[in-house]
Amino acid sequence: MTTTSHTSALDAVLSHIDTTLDASVERLFSLLRIPSISTQPSHAADCREAAEWLQADMASMGLTADIREVRWAAPGHPMVVAHDTTQAGKPHVLFYGHYDVQPTDPENLWKAPPFEPRLVEEPSGRKVIVARGASDDKGQVMTFLEACRAWKTVHGSIPVQVSVLLEGEEECGGSNLLPFLQENAAELKADVALVCDTSMADRQTPGITTSLRGMMAEEIIIECASHDLHSGIYGNAAANPIALLCQILASLRDADGRVTLPGFYDGIQDPSPETRAQWKTLFPDDAALLEEAGLSVAAGEKDYTAIEQTWCRPSCEINGISGGYEGEGFKTVLPAKAMAKVSFRLVPGQEPDKIRETFRAHVNAALPADAKVTFTAHGGSPGFEVSRDSRFLAPTLKALTDEWGIPAATIGCGGSIPVAGEVRDALGLDALMVGFAQSDDRIHSPNEQYGLDSFHKGVRSWARIIASLADAG
Amino acid sequence: MTTTSHTSALDAVLSHIDTTLDASVERLFSLLRIPSISTQPSHAADCREAAEWLQADMASMGLTADIREVRWAAPGHPMVVAHDTTQAGKPHVLFYGHYDVQPTDPENLWKAPPFEPRLVEEPSGRKVIVARGASDDKGQVMTFLEACRAWKTVHGSIPVQVSVLLEGEEECGGSNLLPFLQENAAELKADVALVCDTSMADRQTPGITTSLRGMMAEEIIIECASHDLHSGIYGNAAANPIALLCQILASLRDADGRVTLPGFYDGIQDPSPETRAQWKTLFPDDAALLEEAGLSVAAGEKDYTAIEQTWCRPSCEINGISGGYEGEGFKTVLPAKAMAKVSFRLVPGQEPDKIRETFRAHVNAALPADAKVTFTAHGGSPGFEVSRDSRFLAPTLKALTDEWGIPAATIGCGGSIPVAGEVRDALGLDALMVGFAQSDDRIHSPNEQYGLDSFHKGVRSWARIIASLADAG
Repeated sequence: MTTTSHTSALDAVLSHIDTTLDASVERLFSLLRIPSISTQPSHAADCREAAEWLQADMASMGLTADIREVRWAAPGHPMVVAHDTTQAGKPHVLFYGHYDVQPTDPENLWKAPPFEPRLVEEPSGRKVIVARGASDDKGQVMTFLEACRAWKTVHGSIPVQVSVLLEGEEECGGSNLLPFLQENAAELKADVALVCDTSMADRQTPGITTSLRGMMAEEIIIECASHDLHSGIYGNAAANPIALLCQILASLRDADGRVTLPGFYDGIQDPSPETRAQWKTLFPDDAALLEEAGLSVAAGEKDYTAIEQTWCRPSCEINGISGGYEGEGFKTVLPAKAMAKVSFRLVPGQEPDKIRETFRAHVNAALPADAKVTFTAHGGSPGFEVSRDSRFLAPTLKALTDEWGIPAATIGCGGSIPVAGEVRDALGLDALMVGFAQSDDRIHSPNEQYGLDSFHKGVRSWARIIASLADAG
Repeated sequence: MTTTSHTSALDAVLSHIDTTLDASVERLFSLLRIPSISTQPSHAADCREAAEWLQADMASMGLTADIREVRWAAPGHPMVVAHDTTQAGKPHVLFYGHYDVQPTDPENLWKAPPFEPRLVEEPSGRKVIVARGASDDKGQVMTFLEACRAWKTVHGSIPVQVSVLLEGEEECGGSNLLPFLQENAAELKADVALVCDTSMADRQTPGITTSLRGMMAEEIIIECASHDLHSGIYGNAAANPIALLCQILASLRDADGRVTLPGFYDGIQDPSPETRAQWKTLFPDDAALLEEAGLSVAAGEKDYTAIEQTWCRPSCEINGISGGYEGEGFKTVLPAKAMAKVSFRLVPGQEPDKIRETFRAHVNAALPADAKVTFTAHGGSPGFEVSRDSRFLAPTLKALTDEWGIPAATIGCGGSIPVAGEVRDALGLDALMVGFAQSDDRIHSPNEQYGLDSFHKGVRSWARIIASLADAG
């Protein structure tokens, strides 16, 4: 097919999507009714039911689809793998999503039962699908499957080679994905991975998340005296581990918000001026990011905007601290030990192991003779970045721009999405993270929702991306 | 009587004390058998029984002795008040002690039941009385009463005017003492107060505690975001209340251990060169104070020894800190708030209210726009010092020196002993704190003990002090 014929072929698909939206929503509702909470053992059978539902659904549209067991770690919820690789010579995409959902507590804050999906009209007139998993990630998974179904129904085939991998342990920190990818690398190898588990750049602007922050975390316990002391008897003369901890933690950033560890910023590249300008359009001022948190002033490095601080700059955060008497009232204890949990969000170019070493050396150098420290490592993953010369990036941006009528943005994400790194490590693929969630979708919280517009235009977006990628081979 | 006749009179008293020691110990054992735990309501009747035992004991030696109710606050354990004021024209001492004891938990760590007192011989051959309250404070109370009994038995009178006040709420933080003193000021007014609830300067050296530290304590809560945030999404850009707290707390002391609050050291006097030299003899190096705590290096101001740091220099301690995730493992939360409990031990010359104000101003000045702080005041008492020209100080030191054969020391105490300030405030009296406890008496802990030598030489010491003060009029 030429580009022109693709265009008319696409138009027919989009038209079909529009006219069959109600049926698409009904299918999503069926999936949402299955309480596939992966972290609760009592819902193991529900997880399997969700996997089987998806296997059957993909089989029904003509994909070869299988349930695949995992065996490396508990809880062991199965994978769903499907293929439609009839378009030999065409680009091959591997789509990733997850069918498991978060627990629903506190249950009493839900306005309706979390596994009885409803279409609710907001005061603005916008319609939203309300249910646990509506946005994260069943609704997003179904945007891709409905796009595939539309292509198959209208034209009998999808114009690219498609593989689908849906897992059931994303919400419970499962560790079966990487070994599964490694063991099935030959089968799952494609030209590019498409991940649908992220948000739009803002309410109107579609985006591809092209960078993620990694993380290096440490728990440190500082111990001084052999036992808790009375601050009357020893106060002033005995080393206070809370005070030492505070001094050490306070020394990790300077007055300009920069992390002080030597070499911390080595190897980091700034985003391009174009990208920074695009982000400036999305977030004209720092409050645009911060006001939802009740804040107004960016707390990080002075030379970067709030969104740059979270999307492309590494952080140092104290996530927890504890020591001495924490209860009601006052107790004049001079405690024997104090604890803190510290994490560094890392960006591409930074090496987690090296930063861990630098951090520990910094702490050790700050300790006086009477103090000792114990370190416990938590996490250590590098930042992630889609290679800027990926041939799939531009066609995907173009398809999104066509659908939403606003130039699609390449955006960052301050958190980690492990699958992106694992797909690269196990299969050598770039992962384009395209999602249609909104920041007010309340994922992981009561009354999770997914805009009907997110769903509908999400399906249309994938239909366009498929067409666009078909020509990127 | 002349000094010479006092001396021979004293010799007879001392001799009587030596020959009747067993009976004195037996009386103490009777008192120790009463489980007068003041903080446990189930022991209220036991507290009253201890008060009645003491009232009867003092009456039996010829003092007018009464049980006196208190009504200002719970738990309301009674006071015991006794007088022997037949020696008109002689100095009038008000003796203070307490008959209540600490709870006994953990009970399983006691080698024998805590209210079945025993005389135990240590491997060194030293004999110790083991029971809850042996040292704190029943054993110490009885050193004074046995000295009075010996004077009465041998000579028919005590050569000074004596009033005794024994309370039952010292170990439970009761607040009846001050109003009781105020209401009965005319009756309890004397020339000097004698308090027996402290330790010797070291194992061999008797001492009078002439200074105590006061305290000003604050709880501070710093709040930033309106709710806990995900550190992936907001980390770097959102103000972190734990980090702010650490910065503020770390800024309270400089690298030389000095508290940085403006004016913090205003009004403080250093001890005299003689006192510092005496303390140097007691504690030749910092380890002499610190090694029991498993420490070796004084953590406070560089120009002061460890003992000076605790006895005569003010401190700033963090007694508790809390924020974010404190449990097992790791959670990348960026918390909405963090809390710390901070206390300042104060020495004479410092004003608690002024320092509280300075502290709050310091915290407020350090907060960025997105942070707010809540302060809760805890405690606020000035330091205490016996006036250096008290005419009772030298005779008491002399009596102690005579008994122990080592020059008695004037020492400090890093903690607070509320009665000293309350006696001064309500009655206008200096309080000489003379005690014979040792640092290894395990007060408040299982297997509390009081050396038989502490008890025996304690009784003899009071007999000598009484004689010595008789001439100080």
